[in-house]
Amino acid sequence: MIMKARVTVTLKTDVLDPQGKAIHGALATLGFEGVDSVRQGKLIELELDETDRDEAKRKVEAMCEKLLANTVIENYAIDLSN
Amino acid sequence: MIMKARVTVTLKTDVLDPQGKAIHGALATLGFEGVDSVRQGKLIELELDETDRDEAKRKVEAMCEKLLANTVIENYAIDLSN
Repeated sequence: MIMKARVTVTLKTDVLDPQGKAIHGALATLGFEGVDSVRQGKLIELELDETDRDEAKRKVEAMCEKLLANTVIENYAIDLSN
Repeated sequence: MIMKARVTVTLKTDVLDPQGKAIHGALATLGFEGVDSVRQGKLIELELDETDRDEAKRKVEAMCEKLLANTVIENYAIDLSN
């Protein structure tokens, strides 16, 4: 059975986000007003060959800690679905 | 009032994803088994100075069409919250 994991990786709030700032500036240049802040993050969608939800969660957490996120400056969130 | 918009931009299913493939390879190298596929997307979090939900949605849709997503190869989804 396939389990889908959606991992969102975002910069911690006190970390500068030059990419978000660039998007913010570009939106202003295009005439979009009323944008207070922009932050850019990553989205990683995984398909796992795993039936046990808890085991899948443990696995994806390990992937985040080891590869997908830099936990010094980034937070991650995991969303599992069948 | 601040409205938060969370935009997820993902590659369309028939578009090759070299970044996802690289992550898939790296996970295999690290010993993670049972990963069937990996796709990488973008996450953009916006704070809008807007009270009307419909107006906010229209605005963010326009941002996606004009800047945030390349609609030839990417899909986008918008999630609004107060």
